[in-house]
Amino acid sequence: MTTNTKHETQIIVDPDVPLVRIIREFEAPVEKVFRAHTDPEIFKQWTGPNGYENEIETFDCRTGGSYRYKTSGDGWEGWFRGSFHEVRPNSVIIQTFNYEDIPDGVSLDRIEFEDLGDGRTRLTSTSLVDSFEGRDAFIASGMEVGVNEGYQRLDAILAAS
Amino acid sequence: MTTNTKHETQIIVDPDVPLVRIIREFEAPVEKVFRAHTDPEIFKQWTGPNGYENEIETFDCRTGGSYRYKTSGDGWEGWFRGSFHEVRPNSVIIQTFNYEDIPDGVSLDRIEFEDLGDGRTRLTSTSLVDSFEGRDAFIASGMEVGVNEGYQRLDAILAAS
Repeated sequence: MTTNTKHETQIIVDPDVPLVRIIREFEAPVEKVFRAHTDPEIFKQWTGPNGYENEIETFDCRTGGSYRYKTSGDGWEGWFRGSFHEVRPNSVIIQTFNYEDIPDGVSLDRIEFEDLGDGRTRLTSTSLVDSFEGRDAFIASGMEVGVNEGYQRLDAILAAS
Repeated sequence: MTTNTKHETQIIVDPDVPLVRIIREFEAPVEKVFRAHTDPEIFKQWTGPNGYENEIETFDCRTGGSYRYKTSGDGWEGWFRGSFHEVRPNSVIIQTFNYEDIPDGVSLDRIEFEDLGDGRTRLTSTSLVDSFEGRDAFIASGMEVGVNEGYQRLDAILAAS
């Protein structure tokens, strides 16, 4: 962990709607942070908790495209997939997201990329589901660890590239 | 309108989450009702209010596909589009939906097809958005008229085919 508050991940549980909002800043220009979300070769290196590997089956990150990948590690494996509703370069990705073992648990995710100037970027990611129970189960599943560790690996990739 | 309650459209505004649920029964087998949602040549004949025409640009109704169509009539035209997260034959369609003039107003829609036996089908359609204001604006836009008139045209298509 870091004492630099700019690198802390804020996870905000909305009080009114079944939505989680995740806010994180990166020391990299918006184009690089965006590319790390759209290029499967980069995306697979940082998404998810430490100690897990991602294998991409499909990752067609454009408006109207779709994705599917397998995450495995520690004797576990799971498939994740969704469709890309809209991909606006260096601005926003709107997509669906599903862990296939819970086929009806689909979220509508929105990832906003904000150019803060000076080569810095703020990422605001929201996940909307259709019930508070589903949202709270998602948080209780340990997503915070995966999000934090994933973004720390993304920090390192952005710094090295 | 009809006095047959089976053909009445129920529009239910969820009290807890920003979601609208629409329930409607049809005098047709589930396969036919499903096909009327996935075949663009049928879909374009019934969706939307009376007096409007639909022109399909893309309608790839399969898991990972997408759609875009134009609705026009009465001096107005608008484009609608989204991506198909999942299409399970004769069971469920999970998709995104957007009216392009409001690009950030994206809903996550789920259309369930339930075989009631005796050649009857119940359709339950939910639309989830990220705010109660957005949901209430959608209802205030006159969607109820469009939904009712569209389903009445679908009744006629199902009866004739």
